[in-house]
Amino acid sequence: MSNRYWSPLVHRLTPYVPGEQPKLPHLIKLNTNENPYGPSLKVLEAIQAELSDALRLYPDPNVERLKQAIADYYRITPAQVFVGNGSDEVLAFVFQGLFQHPAPLLFPDITYSFYPVYCGLYSIDYQTVPLAEDFTLRVADYQQPNGGIIFANPNAPTGCLLPLDDLEWLLSHHSDSAVVVDEAYIDFGGETAIALVDRYPNLLVVQTLSKSRSLAGLRVGFAVGHPELIEALERVKNSFNSYPLDRLAIAGAIAAFDDRDHFEQTCQTVIASRETVRAGLRELGFKVLPSAANFLFAHHPRYDAGELAGALRQKSIIVRHFRQPRIEHFLRITVGHPEQNAALLAALSEILESRGWSA
Amino acid sequence: MSNRYWSPLVHRLTPYVPGEQPKLPHLIKLNTNENPYGPSLKVLEAIQAELSDALRLYPDPNVERLKQAIADYYRITPAQVFVGNGSDEVLAFVFQGLFQHPAPLLFPDITYSFYPVYCGLYSIDYQTVPLAEDFTLRVADYQQPNGGIIFANPNAPTGCLLPLDDLEWLLSHHSDSAVVVDEAYIDFGGETAIALVDRYPNLLVVQTLSKSRSLAGLRVGFAVGHPELIEALERVKNSFNSYPLDRLAIAGAIAAFDDRDHFEQTCQTVIASRETVRAGLRELGFKVLPSAANFLFAHHPRYDAGELAGALRQKSIIVRHFRQPRIEHFLRITVGHPEQNAALLAALSEILESRGWSA
Repeated sequence: MSNRYWSPLVHRLTPYVPGEQPKLPHLIKLNTNENPYGPSLKVLEAIQAELSDALRLYPDPNVERLKQAIADYYRITPAQVFVGNGSDEVLAFVFQGLFQHPAPLLFPDITYSFYPVYCGLYSIDYQTVPLAEDFTLRVADYQQPNGGIIFANPNAPTGCLLPLDDLEWLLSHHSDSAVVVDEAYIDFGGETAIALVDRYPNLLVVQTLSKSRSLAGLRVGFAVGHPELIEALERVKNSFNSYPLDRLAIAGAIAAFDDRDHFEQTCQTVIASRETVRAGLRELGFKVLPSAANFLFAHHPRYDAGELAGALRQKSIIVRHFRQPRIEHFLRITVGHPEQNAALLAALSEILESRGWSA
Repeated sequence: MSNRYWSPLVHRLTPYVPGEQPKLPHLIKLNTNENPYGPSLKVLEAIQAELSDALRLYPDPNVERLKQAIADYYRITPAQVFVGNGSDEVLAFVFQGLFQHPAPLLFPDITYSFYPVYCGLYSIDYQTVPLAEDFTLRVADYQQPNGGIIFANPNAPTGCLLPLDDLEWLLSHHSDSAVVVDEAYIDFGGETAIALVDRYPNLLVVQTLSKSRSLAGLRVGFAVGHPELIEALERVKNSFNSYPLDRLAIAGAIAAFDDRDHFEQTCQTVIASRETVRAGLRELGFKVLPSAANFLFAHHPRYDAGELAGALRQKSIIVRHFRQPRIEHFLRITVGHPEQNAALLAALSEILESRGWSA
């Protein structure tokens, strides 16, 4: 399709395709890394309390109370916090505000597939840096002129974690570049780099409430870094949309940081389930990467991953398969609640056995 | 402030300054054109019904149910509808997706002050076209090469309405340009141009639920036009943020289109109050532009507008004053509920009398 009214850019855009959101009620949906457990009751109560005639009024454009809640949680200052409509929006502002430079942006060849899409939207030159054979990130490979570095930690869709020591090496060897760590999954097994922002003015950490805080449906993400990096994001945001977070999302997000017990318990349960599923997959002959996320990245040496995903779908279970070099043999499987996980393993066992596999 | 990690763009950005959102509870806030009446009870009930564990799941990235509700309301098809996180976000996508052309974008010299900000964000060349002396828009003045035309109808901050006949003249004389009509205030006295979209493939109409539907706090806006114009916005949106509308906003917005009675009654009440305030201002010696919006644009021949705004603020009433050529003598006053309007007129009467004015 083409149209004479379009900006030239639009003709070139190949939008990101998010994981499918099917409307059938009985599917077991293990394809978009949602949390199997709901948000804290305190979140629902806080939203309930905000549900009133006050919806006629604009929200606080600076979202001060939520910035304060995040700052209190991580023992930083509100000036080090930016909030947005999901971490996807925060990342869009990062690409526009920090990565439009003459030298190319660097990111891994296997990572969140939205990064090249942002580059297309903002005409950012980029270069991918291959992960090692085992899908770990080698920081030494980034020693080249660049206009910024971004990666997910733990990485997506692999689940692999980069140790904080390696991140520090990267930060100190690239003091001329903004280094952005996308920590969407960090709470499921990693240690956040937020503790490093006071020491590295080139570090920006991006997080989301969609995964570990069970609020994908509410659209809240945030970034933490030096106030001058935050200022770049604020300037872009205030030139784009003054009020991206609605009143209900703000109220719910504040409450989410308030209920530490629910958060920690949920994460621990998901982590334990992940290891159960990992063991189950290995028993079925899968090779499974070690994961610090709420999903597993697995391949079977004897069966085609796309074909397995199709067979699972026949059994009303959806997992993610990426038709992409280096990872076309893998499935990305979200950790669900125990019954979903058991159903997955049972279905896979049936599928493999029907194809002649035995342990 | 300047920072070596910033994209060059960021140094140049002068963000939009939204109307103040003061946190003092006893202020009479007539400065950001919010609706004095709350949303429909059906909206609150629909959000309440959505408030559950399902918040752990992503919303529908295509927002199909809301597009269908808007399509049903305006008797168009869902493919003619785009929805976003407030009309500010929709407008941002319009500027990026439809207005990045070699010829300059045209808009009135006096209009929504966010338009030049979007141009800055997307490096769009623009030229302002002066409104007539009486602040009406003369369509003949737009007869020049352009890469698009945008204006608010009714216009902001003047409240003046352009007749649909004039819009049709513009659409047919600029068939090579996208013509975007920003109808944030249309329900308070104008006729929407949505009925024209089937005849003009270059027309895009942008609306919001913030004003006439009393949902500024929920952040929902939309655009209606030819499916190919909508496709441009979808491509930009899907390269930026797959899920800008959260589950609660979607549920509330659908319900807002469902309750016609509440909507029509609210609009009629605001319109009646506007005419009462207009009469009151004229009795106090103000010149008041005819308004088809939920605000009035007024100046007093004998007193400085900035000084009057300051005096009102002393009395805990906030109105908007723009320090901008041609309109620095005007105040923009939102229509409040009857007690607020009476308090405004009483305060102005006191202020003018203390300065020696008499009718």
